[in-house]
Amino acid sequence: MACNLAIAGVTGAVGQEFLKILEQRDFPFDSLKMLASSRSAGKKFKFKRKEYTVEELRKNSFKNIDIALFSAGGERSREFAPAAVEEGAVVVDNSSAFRMSPDIPLVIPEINPQKIKEHKGIIANPNCSTIVGIVPVWPLHKANQLKRMIVSTYQAASGAGTSAMMELENQSKQLLEGKEPTCKAFKYQIAFNIFSHDSDIGPNGYNTEEMKMVNETHKIFDTADIGITCTCIRVPVFRTHCESINLEFTDPISPEQVKDLLSTAPGVSLIDDAENNRFPMPVDATGKDDIFVGRIRQDESVPDKRAINIWVAGDQLRKGAALNAVQIAEKLL
Amino acid sequence: MACNLAIAGVTGAVGQEFLKILEQRDFPFDSLKMLASSRSAGKKFKFKRKEYTVEELRKNSFKNIDIALFSAGGERSREFAPAAVEEGAVVVDNSSAFRMSPDIPLVIPEINPQKIKEHKGIIANPNCSTIVGIVPVWPLHKANQLKRMIVSTYQAASGAGTSAMMELENQSKQLLEGKEPTCKAFKYQIAFNIFSHDSDIGPNGYNTEEMKMVNETHKIFDTADIGITCTCIRVPVFRTHCESINLEFTDPISPEQVKDLLSTAPGVSLIDDAENNRFPMPVDATGKDDIFVGRIRQDESVPDKRAINIWVAGDQLRKGAALNAVQIAEKLL
Repeated sequence: MACNLAIAGVTGAVGQEFLKILEQRDFPFDSLKMLASSRSAGKKFKFKRKEYTVEELRKNSFKNIDIALFSAGGERSREFAPAAVEEGAVVVDNSSAFRMSPDIPLVIPEINPQKIKEHKGIIANPNCSTIVGIVPVWPLHKANQLKRMIVSTYQAASGAGTSAMMELENQSKQLLEGKEPTCKAFKYQIAFNIFSHDSDIGPNGYNTEEMKMVNETHKIFDTADIGITCTCIRVPVFRTHCESINLEFTDPISPEQVKDLLSTAPGVSLIDDAENNRFPMPVDATGKDDIFVGRIRQDESVPDKRAINIWVAGDQLRKGAALNAVQIAEKLL
Repeated sequence: MACNLAIAGVTGAVGQEFLKILEQRDFPFDSLKMLASSRSAGKKFKFKRKEYTVEELRKNSFKNIDIALFSAGGERSREFAPAAVEEGAVVVDNSSAFRMSPDIPLVIPEINPQKIKEHKGIIANPNCSTIVGIVPVWPLHKANQLKRMIVSTYQAASGAGTSAMMELENQSKQLLEGKEPTCKAFKYQIAFNIFSHDSDIGPNGYNTEEMKMVNETHKIFDTADIGITCTCIRVPVFRTHCESINLEFTDPISPEQVKDLLSTAPGVSLIDDAENNRFPMPVDATGKDDIFVGRIRQDESVPDKRAINIWVAGDQLRKGAALNAVQIAEKLL
């Protein structure tokens, strides 16, 4: 089976990752349409040795398209995804536009692939930090129901796009040369500094990145019975989000059980070598498909050995965004 | 009142900070002796416009010394601090050598200053990440007994000394020039990367940095009834440790109560401006005395509004090390 494929937002950080992953996985397609804003129309990209010209994303861009991968921001998804669906395409949308709509599936193929077939034209891809965090938590929750999850993130600049990665590079050079850093993509200095995530803050004090982790996890795990709280932080790393996760389960669970469960879990790799102090790092996960897990420890601050600490690292442009969407598209075929 | 003062380990990152802080606070002294390893003997440093020559740290270095500030590593503290005490000096020791000895006070002046007078010659300074984390937790615990504390750290390179800060700078330059980074001070790449803390890992899977947070907090708060668990991570920042801290109390507590309690707490400054997404960052805390606190939120994952999330930043060379020791010395006078 093959299909007519469109990529909306092809010039962005995730759009470029779509191309890499489709090529690496030899995704079957009959035709490929590259779409972006009018500003980027006319740019050319190679894909499988053939050159493609970027066309302007319009409502009439989707004639004969079977699958459209969207990563052009929430506003463009809201404007153009319904037009694509009207033309008969299935949209896999990487923005936050439709994630919490009750009749739109929010899918991580390792967790709830059965939801894909319930789609009515649009399937939503979860937020990067949600995917990176919960892929390894799911097999544990299936074995021993999760009661509470406390997450602190260490998020890379790339989550805010290509301009943010360039800003980290530029500011690092400026500071190393003794100059004042220029802040554009981020409000505050990112080089040699860390700050609370740059998303809007709601009346409860949580930023939208943190609330995505709470709400998306409840939807994907299909239960609101898990207490989830999250603190999202940006760190001066180009790619790969890391997360320190504390998990409280219903029944006792040991680090050995966690390692056993994760050693066969799809999409998960263990790096947990205490002797060499060797655990997941951004340099391990960058460009890789799996979520890497280590520092698996019993948390003795909860009685009855029901709590566990883990440390995860995952490339948020790959599994956290483009790869997860391509995996959904593969299951659609 | 004044005294004859000695600094052991004056050439290190904390030693240099001792000099800055003693000068800034106009610490009263009659004489000052600068001590370091034989390798550094002969080096010269200015202090209050006078030049001092570094002498080799020996057992007979402490004749007529009243107060000796030690930051020369645990091994040297174990070797030389008893000799200083024998000569009649009071040692304020920044190493981990004596912290958990039952009859040696472990002091944060904002928390347990009354322990200073119980000393038998040595007073221990807590670990940097412990001080940064618990200075703002203490006033909350006094108001509403703490039941559980879950900490994830974001620790600067400077915690591993001057060579680690230089390594962050060198590696950043190398990577920006497309070169391979040279790893010496740390086993793994620190520039544009993060990794689990570089201290030894015990049989329970926790590294010594994490266990210091647990054990030192119990000793300083004078209770082992608080469940504490910790994940310690290095980030590519030169100075200032940050920590994401989840706190569960005995009784309900609101973010407003926490802000009220912290707004008058000694050694604490609030930066908690949700409208401008302005919260504590390393660039705020570096070179400052206070621990900065923000992101004060109700954690709804625990029933009855008994849990709070906070985010803290503190210069671990100042309050996390040198300043805390100098404050102890001031109280000794």
